[in-house]
Amino acid sequence: VPQEHDIAGEDSLIRGYFAPLAAGFAGAFGLEDDCAALSPEPGRDIVLKTDAVAEGVHFFATDAPEDIAWKAVAVNVSDLAAKGATPIGYLMSLSFPVPPARAWLERFVAGLREAQERFGMSLIGGDTDRRPNAPVSITVMAIGSVPKGRMVRRGTAQAGDVLYVTGTLGDAALGLRLRTGEIDDKGGAHLAASEREFLLRRYLRPEPRLALVSVLLAFARSAMDLSDGLVKDLGRLCRASGKAAQVEAWLVPLSPPARTLLERRPELALLPLTGGDDYEILVTVAPEAVSSFEAAARGAGVPVTRIGAVCEGGGVTVRDSSGRTIDIASPGYDHF
Amino acid sequence: VPQEHDIAGEDSLIRGYFAPLAAGFAGAFGLEDDCAALSPEPGRDIVLKTDAVAEGVHFFATDAPEDIAWKAVAVNVSDLAAKGATPIGYLMSLSFPVPPARAWLERFVAGLREAQERFGMSLIGGDTDRRPNAPVSITVMAIGSVPKGRMVRRGTAQAGDVLYVTGTLGDAALGLRLRTGEIDDKGGAHLAASEREFLLRRYLRPEPRLALVSVLLAFARSAMDLSDGLVKDLGRLCRASGKAAQVEAWLVPLSPPARTLLERRPELALLPLTGGDDYEILVTVAPEAVSSFEAAARGAGVPVTRIGAVCEGGGVTVRDSSGRTIDIASPGYDHF
Repeated sequence: VPQEHDIAGEDSLIRGYFAPLAAGFAGAFGLEDDCAALSPEPGRDIVLKTDAVAEGVHFFATDAPEDIAWKAVAVNVSDLAAKGATPIGYLMSLSFPVPPARAWLERFVAGLREAQERFGMSLIGGDTDRRPNAPVSITVMAIGSVPKGRMVRRGTAQAGDVLYVTGTLGDAALGLRLRTGEIDDKGGAHLAASEREFLLRRYLRPEPRLALVSVLLAFARSAMDLSDGLVKDLGRLCRASGKAAQVEAWLVPLSPPARTLLERRPELALLPLTGGDDYEILVTVAPEAVSSFEAAARGAGVPVTRIGAVCEGGGVTVRDSSGRTIDIASPGYDHF
Repeated sequence: VPQEHDIAGEDSLIRGYFAPLAAGFAGAFGLEDDCAALSPEPGRDIVLKTDAVAEGVHFFATDAPEDIAWKAVAVNVSDLAAKGATPIGYLMSLSFPVPPARAWLERFVAGLREAQERFGMSLIGGDTDRRPNAPVSITVMAIGSVPKGRMVRRGTAQAGDVLYVTGTLGDAALGLRLRTGEIDDKGGAHLAASEREFLLRRYLRPEPRLALVSVLLAFARSAMDLSDGLVKDLGRLCRASGKAAQVEAWLVPLSPPARTLLERRPELALLPLTGGDDYEILVTVAPEAVSSFEAAARGAGVPVTRIGAVCEGGGVTVRDSSGRTIDIASPGYDHF
């Protein structure tokens, strides 16, 4: 009788938990091969992005496994959306300090499934390892596609472009501070449960703006997603474009819970300009395309708000409603 | 004067060290955009692979930065090669516990450059973060291409196929044990400096078998790269193919230094069958294609050795030169 060598551990983990997430994609080969194969559609480019989330940095060990999984995928899909790309699939490199509990894994996989069904993509490959004493980490590589040569760029803004953002800013940064206790009711926040829940959810469950993809392809001159804070990310767009930008701080859209909280905690007023984790899209639109862009965004059900303009020069200027420049000491999140 | 918000830290790291590695690839946009764009060649599929290396698991903190960088890329390219794929580019997600020293980074980038020039690919995107108290980790996603529908699979071996491996096995596993001191001269190893150096280098500097790509596309029925040990990886190929395999242990090719060492340390004799990090290719070839395959491999300058055969059934049997089955308790490396 030939001796069957048990394919234990890592292989069981992949077959038992992750392979079902790859069932809808032929070129994933059930996660049983070394590589995935992808047949590009004629006339389209492949768009690629990688971003990692780690326990203690991007999420907390006590976060719901569904939320961790969702966020790991969503932060990458947000970049695809900002580039006008439609998601196809993702690879995932996982690292655990100890073999994860079955119940945790099941919920983690449920979160991945929810995310990939919402975003229209499949798990197509990956890798799992164990690193003693290291935080849980999840590195996702997202793959999408755009019409050939049409990826929406960061570096193509022009002077005179109108600056827009989707949704509302600062919610996630406030949600994070509620999550850590940095903002609490002792400081006079006194939020209703539903307001608190809204802000927390904006931190835990970013919603990539995929509904804007076709609008961006049609009308954006340049775009990027907001993950490290408006002023910092806009500074990157300006730098890549060789342009400057002016932001009218009083035009930056706030959700009702954020507005309520910021009225009670005025020392946090700059957070919508500098806080990370928005996962909204910053778009510049040529002046002649503004009304078409706004109409198309309305048609797509994505709120967009005009917050400023691109001009010649370099750097980002932020002004208050009386036209005074606001000094921003720390424009956004930096790991280093 | 518009206020210039300094784009410090992470952006400087990317611009100063990593952007030059992306200079040769237009769709990397100098690493200044959110995503990379790739225009697929007509008639080819994209092949994708991700694998991570972490300090303390896959390399040592004291390893040369050039070697760490090389290995992070090479272990992924090895998979591409085994699938018949030609490398195009890679994304890299880096994590450091503290900002890395300039000298370390320069050497790390030099290792990446050496690897990507050798393998014919560019850095096209990535992400860098800081995780306090976590090991340095490097997750690479490699992108290659194959003629449409022609990726060499794991799951397509057929009964009667002849089993080949490239190069020699066990060198890296022995090199690792020399590196850790688990094998030392006190145990009677008494290797010459050049023998020791050869084995260490096989651990530190895997050489993906890209020269075999066209040979695999022409003649392989199935193939995979060997990273977790021959018996374990062959078990995976058998499982994916629904077949069994027999390996003649005495046919497994050994380098002269490995042979010398194993003669002196006979208790390690199974290591070429079970040790990881070989990054050689396991190939199955239909009997009628054997002589063409051998001639083509010779033409490509890649040594290949016949080590057994595929048959009906399941599992892997290993036999010694007298035909007795060798019991392999632990067929290879597993993280879990």
